[in-house]
Parts: sequence; C-alpha cells; structure tokens
Amino acid sequence: MKTAVCLFVLALLGLPTQAQTIHSPGRKLTLQFQLSPAGEPTYQLRYGARPVVLPSRLVVLLKDAPGFDRGFTIAKVDSSRHDDTWTPVWGEVKQIRNHYQELAVTVQQAAAQNRQLVLRFRLFDDGLGFRYEFPEQANLKYFTVSDERTEFNLAADHQAFWIRGDYDTNEYIYSTTKLSEVGPTTYKVTPEISTQVPIAPNAVQTPLMLKSADGLYVNLHEAALVNYPAMALLVNGATHGLVSQLTPSAAGPDSKAFLQAPARTPWRTVVVADNAPAILASKLILNLNEPSKIQDTGWITPQKFVGVWWEMHVNKGNWFYSDVTNIQLAGADFTQFKPTGRHSANTANVKRYIDFAAKNGLQSVLVEGWNVGWEDWFGNWKEEVFDFVTPYPDFAVDELQAYAAARNVKLIMHHETSGSVTNYERRMDAAYRFMKAHNYDAVKTGYVGRIIPRGEHHDGQWMVNHYVHAAQQTAANRIMVDMHESVRPTGLHRTYPNWLANEAARGNEFNAWSQGNPPEHETILPFTRLMGGPMDYTPGIFQIKLDAYAPQNKGKQVHTTLAKQLALYVTLYSPLQMAADLPETYEKLSDAFQFIRDVAVDWDDTRILAAEPGDHLTTVRKAKGKDEWYLGSITDEQPRQQSVRLDFLTPGVRYVATVYADGKGADWQKNPMAYQIRQVPVTSKSKLDLKLAPGGGAAVSFKPATREKGKN
Amino acid sequence: MKTAVCLFVLALLGLPTQAQTIHSPGRKLTLQFQLSPAGEPTYQLRYGARPVVLPSRLVVLLKDAPGFDRGFTIAKVDSSRHDDTWTPVWGEVKQIRNHYQELAVTVQQAAAQNRQLVLRFRLFDDGLGFRYEFPEQANLKYFTVSDERTEFNLAADHQAFWIRGDYDTNEYIYSTTKLSEVGPTTYKVTPEISTQVPIAPNAVQTPLMLKSADGLYVNLHEAALVNYPAMALLVNGATHGLVSQLTPSAAGPDSKAFLQAPARTPWRTVVVADNAPAILASKLILNLNEPSKIQDTGWITPQKFVGVWWEMHVNKGNWFYSDVTNIQLAGADFTQFKPTGRHSANTANVKRYIDFAAKNGLQSVLVEGWNVGWEDWFGNWKEEVFDFVTPYPDFAVDELQAYAAARNVKLIMHHETSGSVTNYERRMDAAYRFMKAHNYDAVKTGYVGRIIPRGEHHDGQWMVNHYVHAAQQTAANRIMVDMHESVRPTGLHRTYPNWLANEAARGNEFNAWSQGNPPEHETILPFTRLMGGPMDYTPGIFQIKLDAYAPQNKGKQVHTTLAKQLALYVTLYSPLQMAADLPETYEKLSDAFQFIRDVAVDWDDTRILAAEPGDHLTTVRKAKGKDEWYLGSITDEQPRQQSVRLDFLTPGVRYVATVYADGKGADWQKNPMAYQIRQVPVTSKSKLDLKLAPGGGAAVSFKPATREKGKN
Repeated sequence: MKTAVCLFVLALLGLPTQAQTIHSPGRKLTLQFQLSPAGEPTYQLRYGARPVVLPSRLVVLLKDAPGFDRGFTIAKVDSSRHDDTWTPVWGEVKQIRNHYQELAVTVQQAAAQNRQLVLRFRLFDDGLGFRYEFPEQANLKYFTVSDERTEFNLAADHQAFWIRGDYDTNEYIYSTTKLSEVGPTTYKVTPEISTQVPIAPNAVQTPLMLKSADGLYVNLHEAALVNYPAMALLVNGATHGLVSQLTPSAAGPDSKAFLQAPARTPWRTVVVADNAPAILASKLILNLNEPSKIQDTGWITPQKFVGVWWEMHVNKGNWFYSDVTNIQLAGADFTQFKPTGRHSANTANVKRYIDFAAKNGLQSVLVEGWNVGWEDWFGNWKEEVFDFVTPYPDFAVDELQAYAAARNVKLIMHHETSGSVTNYERRMDAAYRFMKAHNYDAVKTGYVGRIIPRGEHHDGQWMVNHYVHAAQQTAANRIMVDMHESVRPTGLHRTYPNWLANEAARGNEFNAWSQGNPPEHETILPFTRLMGGPMDYTPGIFQIKLDAYAPQNKGKQVHTTLAKQLALYVTLYSPLQMAADLPETYEKLSDAFQFIRDVAVDWDDTRILAAEPGDHLTTVRKAKGKDEWYLGSITDEQPRQQSVRLDFLTPGVRYVATVYADGKGADWQKNPMAYQIRQVPVTSKSKLDLKLAPGGGAAVSFKPATREKGKN
Repeated sequence: MKTAVCLFVLALLGLPTQAQTIHSPGRKLTLQFQLSPAGEPTYQLRYGARPVVLPSRLVVLLKDAPGFDRGFTIAKVDSSRHDDTWTPVWGEVKQIRNHYQELAVTVQQAAAQNRQLVLRFRLFDDGLGFRYEFPEQANLKYFTVSDERTEFNLAADHQAFWIRGDYDTNEYIYSTTKLSEVGPTTYKVTPEISTQVPIAPNAVQTPLMLKSADGLYVNLHEAALVNYPAMALLVNGATHGLVSQLTPSAAGPDSKAFLQAPARTPWRTVVVADNAPAILASKLILNLNEPSKIQDTGWITPQKFVGVWWEMHVNKGNWFYSDVTNIQLAGADFTQFKPTGRHSANTANVKRYIDFAAKNGLQSVLVEGWNVGWEDWFGNWKEEVFDFVTPYPDFAVDELQAYAAARNVKLIMHHETSGSVTNYERRMDAAYRFMKAHNYDAVKTGYVGRIIPRGEHHDGQWMVNHYVHAAQQTAANRIMVDMHESVRPTGLHRTYPNWLANEAARGNEFNAWSQGNPPEHETILPFTRLMGGPMDYTPGIFQIKLDAYAPQNKGKQVHTTLAKQLALYVTLYSPLQMAADLPETYEKLSDAFQFIRDVAVDWDDTRILAAEPGDHLTTVRKAKGKDEWYLGSITDEQPRQQSVRLDFLTPGVRYVATVYADGKGADWQKNPMAYQIRQVPVTSKSKLDLKLAPGGGAAVSFKPATREKGKN
C-alpha cells in the first residue's frame, strides 16, 4: 500500500536560502537543508536534540564543465510522506515497512546556464538516505563526474570501526580507533591481500561504523550502487569531517563517472540509533533500493552447501591439475599434461561431497578447480585465463550431472575470472549455456587480481556496471549468483534477488593461510560489510587447528571456538551458507554438525538481542514458515555470559532448546574444539544462560517439543 | 610442398659478432645481421649493390626488466630455404609461391640472466620480413613491452607517400614529400575525422611507400599483427632514419604489449623492387601470415552488394528513425517515438534494394540504420549505444528475410559499435545468433569514436585482439566480416578468409561530406593501405555531383570521373565490392552499370600493367574459373594516355573488349559524368589505347567473342 502524499510544493523563483526542515515519521530524526550564502547546498541531521551530521556541503564536480557546487538558488521544494510494506523474496524478516518523509529540493545555477540539480532526501526513523539527481535538461546531457565531495561533518571524535580505503579490495582487518586516529600507522597491515590500491592514509571504506561518546551509533554507507563508482570516505581527523572519494576510471583521476542525464547517484546513507541492535535491525538500505526486477522468483532458492574448496585452502589438494606452470589457454591440451595427483576437483572426490550433501540434507555442492587454467591463473594481468566451459580431464561433467541429479543434489558452478572481466564478459553467454545444459542453477564468481579492462578498479563505475550485468545475465538464465572479490554490496539483492550473496570482505579462508581474522572480526562484520547485504563468509570450520590437515599449516588456525563457528550461521546473515569444512571432519563430529543440518537459511523474523560492535552479538531468527528459532551468540577474545530471555518464542508452546555451547575450558587459542550439547525444555517465559569462552560462541535451536527431535 | 632444409647450424658459445649474411632465392636481395661492439643486434638490407636499409638496430624494451637491446652474444644461428605454393580461398591470383631464405639468430644476454631472443628473417626476392621471438625460458615468462625501437635507416631522402601517425584513425589524406619534409606543416588537415590522436609531428603510418631517386621502390609495413599493438614510424628527417612506435595500452605509455613467453612480434616487412608494379604484385605479406585456420571454407563467398547507405551520406535519408535525441538504450521504447519520416532502413525501401540486387545479379544488400540507437550514437564515450538485435519499428526483420530469400538475395548485417567494444563483445553471441536465425551470413562492423575500454586505442594490443576475436567468432558462426574503422590490415585474411575486407583508410564516403579525396588518392591506396589486404572502398558512384541528391550537398562531389569509378573495381582489389550509388541512379545509367554487373570479385590472375604511386595505375585481372579479363586504368588529376598490349589474353582466342571510357571533354571537375562505351574485337596480339581524362579512368571487360555479349 502506498500513501505518498504531496504535502506542500514551493515553486517560487528567487526563493531565499532559508532552511527546509523535515522530521522522520516518528520524529526521531530531523533533517535540515539550506543553501549557504555562496549558494552551496548543505544539510544537517539531528537525532532528537543531538547532532549527527553538522552542516555539510553537497558537491559534485564535473570534468570540462562548471561544478554543481555553488551559486545555486532554490527553484522548487517538494515534500511527501511514504509508507508501505513489501515482502522480500528471501530475507531476515517476512515483511519490511518502508516509511519515510521525503524532501526533494531542486536547485538551479544561474551562472551555469540555469542547470538544475535535485537533492532528494528520505528520512526514516532509523536514518537518512539522500542522493543527487541530474534531471534531463537543455544544458546537461552527457557529463563526466570528476569528483563528488559529499561531506559528513560529524559532531565529535567518534570511535570508528574501519578498514582502509582501497579501490580494489575490501579484505582488510578492521581497526577500531577514534576518527582522529585514522591514519598510516593505525590500519592493519595485510600483505596477504594480493591486489591492494590504497587511496590515501586517511581514507576509509564504507560501511563505516561509528559510535559516539554519548551513545549514538551511526553507520555511513550507500544504497543502490548502480552505474556509478563506489564511494570511500576521507577523514579529517582534526574536524571529524568526512568527505566522499569516488573510485576513478581507467580514463584517469578526473574521470570518475560517465553519466547521461537523466541520471542519479546512489543513495548516501546515514543509519542512526541510540543502541547497537537497532543499527543491525535497520532495513533502510534495502528500502532505498528498487523492487525486484525479476518477475518469477520461484526458482530462487536459499540454500546450504558444501564444497570442494577448504581442502585446497588447507593444502590437502590443489585447484590445478597438472605440473605445467606456463599455460597459454588457446591451444593448450590439458589431456597431454602430467597430472600432479593432487587435483581436488576430480570425479571421485566430487561424488564424495555429493554423497555427503545428500545424506545430510544440504542442497548443493560447490566445485572449484573443475575447469582448465588453474596452473597459471594469477598475478600477471593476463586476459585469457579461463574459458569457463572446459573441464579438467579428471572432472566428468556428464557423469557428475547424472550422479548429483540421482541424489537430488545440485552442483554449484565456479567462475573465477582472475580479474579478467573482458574475458569473462565475452564468454558469459557460452558459460551460462554450458551451465544450463548441465543442470547448474547457481554460480560463484571471483575477481581475484588486477582488473582487465586495464586501468579499471574493482570498485569503479565500469566494474559496478559489470556486477549488475552479471546479476542481470544470470537472472535471465535463471541462475543464482554469489560474487567474491566484488565491490561491497549496497542492497541490490532486493532488485536482483538471484544475487544471493557476495564475499566483498575478509572471509573465513584468511584463517587458513594468513594472520587470519581476529576474534572480534565477526562481531564487527554485521555493523560494516553486512549492512549492504548477505555475505558468503563460509563458516562452519570444525577442525580449528589446521595442521591436522597438513603439516605445513602449523600455527594456522581459525580464530574462534567450534561453537562460535556454529553461531555464525545465525549472526552472519546469508541465504547462501556454506558448511565449509571437509565431509570427513563433519562425519567425525556429527553431533555438532546437527546444528548445520537444522539451521534455516530463510527467515520470517529476526531479533537482535544484544550487540556491541567489536565485542559481542546475539541474534535469534525464526525459520521461514516454521515455528522454529535459531540463536547465535558470539564474543570477541573476551569470555562473556549472555542471559537470554526467550520471550520471542510463541507463548504457550513448549520447545526443546538444543544448546551447542563452548565446552569446559574452551578457548579459541588453547582449546578451541571443546564443545558441549545439551537439550533443555523451554517456553517463552524461560531464560537461557549462555557462557561464551574467549573467542567463543553458542548456537541454539528451538523446536516445538511435540516434534521429533534431531531431524528436520 | 615444403622443402625446408636446415643448411647449417652454428651453435657455438662465444660466437663473434661477425656478420651473418643471406641472399634471397634469386639473389636479388642480401641481408646481413651483425652484433655491434656493444652487443646490439643490427641488420642491413641491399638490393643488388644498392643499399635499402643501412645498419639498423633491433630493440625491444621491457617495463620493470632489462631491455632486449644490448649486451648480446650470438648463441645459435639457423638458416634454411623454403619453397612451396599455396592456394588462397579467394584472391588476386590462383596460387601463391612462398619462396624465401630464412635466417634465425638466437642471441643471449649474459648480464640479464642469459635471457634469449630469436631474430628471425625471411628474405624473399621481393623483400624482407623479420620478427622478434621470445622463446619459453626460465627467466622470461610474463613481460610488458614498454617500447619497440626497430630501426629502418634508409639510404637517402626518399620521396614518401604518407599519412600521419595516429593511434586511432587511418582516414587521412596522403601527403607526398621527401622524408626530410615530414612534419607539422606538411600533413593534410582533416578536421572531418571524428577521433584523432596524432602521435607526434614526425610520425607516419604504415604501409609507408617510398621511392628513391635512383628508382628503388620500398614499402614498409607489418604482417600478421596478432596480440601486439600496431606500429607507426617516427621519421628522423636529418638522417632518413625511421624507428618503430607502438600504440600504448590503457595502462599507460610504458605498457604497450602484455606478452607471455613463448611470444613473438608481428613481422616487420620491407618490400623492395626496382619498379612500382612489382610492389603491387608482391605477396610477401600474405606469405608471412599463417595458413587458414578455417577448415571448411565453402560458405565463404566473394560478392558484390548494394546497400542502404549512400543515400544517408548524400542527405536523402537518415540512419535514425525518430526525433528523440537523448536515448538511454535500457528501457527506451522506440515504438513510442515519433518517426521523422526520413528513416532509410524501412521495409519498403530495403525491398527496393533487394529487387535491384536480384534484377542485376548482385548477391547482397547491406542495410545500415536498421537497429535502434542511432538517434544518439556518437561522440559521448557512451557504453550502451546499440544492442544489435532490436530493429526499428519500421524495419520488418522476418518479412525482409522472406522477401530476400525468395529473390535469392542475402541481406548483410550492420554492427556499428560506436567504439564501445566492451558492449559489442558482451552482446556478440546474441547478435550472431540473431543473424543466423534471420539468414544473414555477412556483417559489416564499425568502430567510429573513442574506444571503450576507456584508454584503449583502435590500434592498441587490446583492440588488435578484438578484431581477431571478431574474425574468429564470426568464422565459428559461418559469418563473413567487413570491418570499418579497424586497425590497418596485415594479411590476416589468409588466416581468417571469412574476414573479407576492411575499410581502415579514407573511403569514398569522405567525398560526400568533407573536402573529399583528391584525384590521386586511389593511385596511392594500392601502394599503402591495400598492401595489407582488401579494402571496402565502396566505389561505383555514378552521380558525381552530389547536389543532384539534396541541395545541401552543394559543392560536394566525388573527385573522379564516372569511368574512373568503374575502373576502381579492378584497381582496388577486394572480394567484397559495393555498388555504392543508389538503385535509381544505376537504372538511369544502365549501360555503364553493365560493367559492375559483369566484373568479377575473385580472380585467377592479376597483372599490374603500369603504375606509379600518386600518378596512375593500370591493372588487369582474369576472372576466377573463366576466360574473362577485366581491366582498370586510372589517373590522378593529369590526363593520360595508356597504351595497353593485350598479350595477357589467351592466344588464339577472339575476344570482345567492352571499353567504358571517359567521354569527350570529360574532366573530374567540369564534366565528370561524360563517358562512352565501345566494343572492340581483340586478340592477344591487339593493343588498346585508353585516354584518361583529368581525374579519369577506363574500365574494360574482355569476353570471348563466341559468348553472348552483355550478360554473364
């Protein structure tokens, strides 16, 4: 239901620079728009009486044309109220209310041929979204954005949860510092990231999580990033002012976005609350995205999967097949190459994963390394790396297709591009036809390495358009997609619900071969990366110390307890969840694996019971269409007690809570695999006490007591 | 038949810098290779005793690695003789002899990890080809060429026929100057070329035609341009030394070619003769290309065509359909746009061309402007311009498919990319499927405008790879291709015989809307642009003064006589020849059009009877599989008499020669359309006198007298 009502329209020429003020529907937030005496558009945002954003300028500069920066007068002001509720194809909740007050100010530059710009604000009770709109007009057709300088002048020196601004990667470790401390000595050094193009010592990425001394939580990001480069933020430590920094194109630093009017930027988002859980509950970014462009969504299936993947990360096998290390794809005959005998994506091994998935009710099996080219795929800015249709000699496509189908398991395709996106785009049609011919309906894509077209960045406009193109082309072929090393998401899964997940942050695999992810990592991700959309974090590692898999992994381990790995299935939302460890490991720890068998991947409801970025997070969710709830609770390196009131359960129903908790003496470093499982009868009036070990967590399933236990 | 014989192998370490000398099979040319005292590879070339290339260095520089420039010793010398004869799929002659002496010198750099380089020379009686080869080796895998500095130190200040060196266009007017006069004041100013990126004031393009004071003709170009940027030449006017200049990539001027060993450059070619016709008869560039990669070539058909094209150039119609000028392709509904009523590619008009082609025995009809997007297609570095599958509302694809098929006429597809090659590549599969579904088997492509990927050039490695990719993909779909605004060809039509022609030079259409092409233009093209391969010049304009078509063409005209337009079908070789004027014009001048009806497009033999670049050219060719000969004779702005001995005709056979000559008082400026047609009985002992008007020409068909006349 839509109740857009135009409340007032002021279309007076020569309108003064006086403030335009709107309040959010529940009057929690107040936005004021004003022109400065120089005719500069500015805005400010208050939460109650507390300032969130001090007066800040809104500036877009153009190449070879006057900037949209100053000399403006107000030509028109529109305000309206919007309130409706929509149903996501999949998600954390069954329905989402989209309730905001809108202010659209048309400003005009007399000195620049009366060019007009619309500044559109949508003010929700949980935050603000605003964007620049460039209407179709006589004196603006094609234009190149050289810079956008949107200011976010913050009220004080907040605590910030941040990673470096970088045009090509978001796989950094978070730093937690004051804004004034952001700089060249406070970021986490991560030499293990292969492709790094840091922007500047004071640049940070969005989503940026901030916490004020007086208890305000502020999250800065963007929504609906389409046909525009991604935005980073430059921090002025002295003033606590932030300003946007767009990713440049291959045409140079003065050419960031190529636009044609009518055009618009993504929404710049400021989510605000006086408590941390409310930040995580915000649906503001989704609300600012367009509804689904896919008509029939019945084929889109949230799912759990296993994959031929972790065994390569832990050195039990390889992506590559042969001992040839210098490959030129055209003309290479892989059937003539000598196999190493360590190629994981071989038919027998994949069958083992299919059997495991079938036995345990997991929907699908990802296979990486199935296609030729992995011997020589990385680091050389090479265009012809993979063809996406030629399997290695030991991967029997047809045989596996039949084997999986007979067991009601789907195979998930893998398309690593090596950053050579021109090569991927020109082969996409053939690759998707190959997939459909072999009954694949989901693909994991990857963008490791420097981008081709050379000079473009992962986060630039061209690549942003590529990701959307891939989402559209997969959708046209009824294929679900999971993108790794892509730009950070901005809620576009509302518009393209076949785009199930992204990586676009530091995932679990870093634990296998680098300094890893510190115990606080997963308590920060929901406040940062996940604000934009689901993450394919690949949780579920049970064999925490990795030298058990191969001696050369000595010292490598996942930086959590086993129980915390289970909790991540709830705390890190995704409709696509991997059970990332090896089948043989899960078989040995089958009682703990029961939580992964049980846990849902699509939800009717979600409650954030407790949260503090960098410290802890407790989330409970109700499985889609069932009276079953799943709870995850995690902590950083500090042990913690969480006392959970179960008042979310249906009153009057008796449930069995199965608690997967850290065992006695559990500790992420010293004793990470100690866990205990207990079953407790509970009702909505019960309370559950969870003890979280250092680096630990707990996972709980709640099922009505009348149901059979232990199976779903 | 191959008779490769390894004559001698010297594989001695510490071999001196002494000269390695080879002679061409007929000993016309002598090549000497030598290392300088600094270990620099050098070569020199003699024609008999006359120097062609004085000692010149061979240098390839790398980014972030030592250059292949000096410090070399000779590690190995191979020499061999090759002599075989091959049959082109189509061409100027039935068979081609490939006869050369080869010298391959492996040189090694002790100071650079003993890296090796092979300098391979092939010496024919009509010239030299040589290239750099980078063998697979331990210390050279991936590398980036920052510069190639191949020298061509010429013996004297030759006369040069040249156009500006430019990374994005070859549509310039030729200048004829001494080498020492090449510079910023001597090139022809051509503001009508939309995308110009001149390299330097002293840069010229290849094929570069040179003529020495003592009567040597030298042509510099390259062969088999694959996976490497195109080469221009920088002229040192003082020394008469030329040095290669590669086209840079989007990654910057220090990144010209991204290579992976084993790799090789294109062949650098020096065609040499003591007379101009011998230059035109050379098959050296074809011989240096690889044999056809297409197995079954039966579907490849040399052909003549008409097209919905010239009428737009002469302002009788438009490519675009509607009056909307700001188009965003996604979501634009062209059926809702108001048509201008001047859209040429409408069903009724196309039927008219089909009827004309059917009636006159032409195989096909090109239609430009059939697909949506032309309202707003050019000049804005815009990515989504055309989709290649959506016809305008007034172009009935299915109806025209049936209409053409019923008349045994093929439609030729048109794919203008607007330089947005990423867009084309990602839509190629769908575009070719659309073609095949609608019975198209040939496509004309176009690359007008700045290239996307942004920062790439028409002549850079990325685009070179694109053209080859397009040739391969069309071949895979059994589609013939004709590329406009592409890089200049280098004989790759031997390898991809579906690649019938290119424009890649200043074509006939410049006469319609610019200063045009001077009368000498077509006498230079065969010595320059056509050395690399066939050109779709689009000859056959009968209505010479263009204001007859539309008053706004006042002052515009083709800079030849009508008879010269006929001669071009013989003098400008192409297996794909357009009859470029309008059907209604040809119907009015049907007797002259008979030559176009008759003339062949595939040949068993070709003789260059007389030629001088910039002055005149007389060529005669024997039609494939027939005892019919066609002669073309053209002149520049000077009137000229050509007396032609007909000893090429089969002895003892009586022929009827139909002579299409300039009429009395014909003159390209004052009286361009005056022509006369006469029939003469001739034999191989006859002589024919042709009078060429200023800017004029003559065309002659020779058919056995026993055949019916006037029809083939």
